[in-house]
Amino acid sequence: MKASIPLVLVAACSFSVSAGAQFAKTEDAIKYRQSAMFIQSQHVARLGAMASGRAPYDATAAVANAEVVAEISKLPWAGFGPGTEGGKAKPEIWQEQAKFKELSERLMSDTEKLLGAAKAGNLDALKAAMGPLGETCKTCHDTFRKK
Amino acid sequence: MKASIPLVLVAACSFSVSAGAQFAKTEDAIKYRQSAMFIQSQHVARLGAMASGRAPYDATAAVANAEVVAEISKLPWAGFGPGTEGGKAKPEIWQEQAKFKELSERLMSDTEKLLGAAKAGNLDALKAAMGPLGETCKTCHDTFRKK
Repeated sequence: MKASIPLVLVAACSFSVSAGAQFAKTEDAIKYRQSAMFIQSQHVARLGAMASGRAPYDATAAVANAEVVAEISKLPWAGFGPGTEGGKAKPEIWQEQAKFKELSERLMSDTEKLLGAAKAGNLDALKAAMGPLGETCKTCHDTFRKK
Repeated sequence: MKASIPLVLVAACSFSVSAGAQFAKTEDAIKYRQSAMFIQSQHVARLGAMASGRAPYDATAAVANAEVVAEISKLPWAGFGPGTEGGKAKPEIWQEQAKFKELSERLMSDTEKLLGAAKAGNLDALKAAMGPLGETCKTCHDTFRKK
């Protein structure tokens, strides 16, 4: 256990490196992560409509949506820095950082795979990639988002 | 003038192609464009702080921020589709589509140049690219955003 603590800290620090988690105030961090999640949800919904047959499959649109999802899925995490509790975020996010980080990384991995599936240009690949992504969304929301 | 009308229509249609402007309701379109603008403003502010000397120049962070700005600057426009008047958007957006489109394209061009400048890895290039970007933001907000 002792050995794992520095690793977790290093991981937490490298989490929001580069584009920076320099928010002027907590409200900005909350608005930032909610904005990213909202944009993501819109594009995921369009892909979900195609995957479920509620919307016609459009390979070009699928790639375009998946590209946005893959990019945007990298963003929300910088908005969950220390001291930014609030909004719909459960306190567990800051108490279970390793788990939260694991799920955020799983999401980013899922969205990369989704983009690959969209680029494959067939509906079955898209459907197959939407399942794990939806599962990751649900697991994280069930665990870390207030009802 | 007559000849330009079809061009404007074609341009307006291709505007939000691919990732799709399929919002379930007007509120979603407004929230979407505001979310994208907010994320963008956060990253532009970080670059602005570096360019003005209020924050230390960090070449890696500059590239990371500029990458987000370049990507996000493509998004808001799909949220300004027909019938989505509201929020801080002036009605002029829908009355002067060609001008709005021109400014949105100028922004996307500015953010691509900003990314190139950030990748050049020197502060002077970054400063030089921030000027036109700031000017485009201001021009568009002065013309099309409510006070």
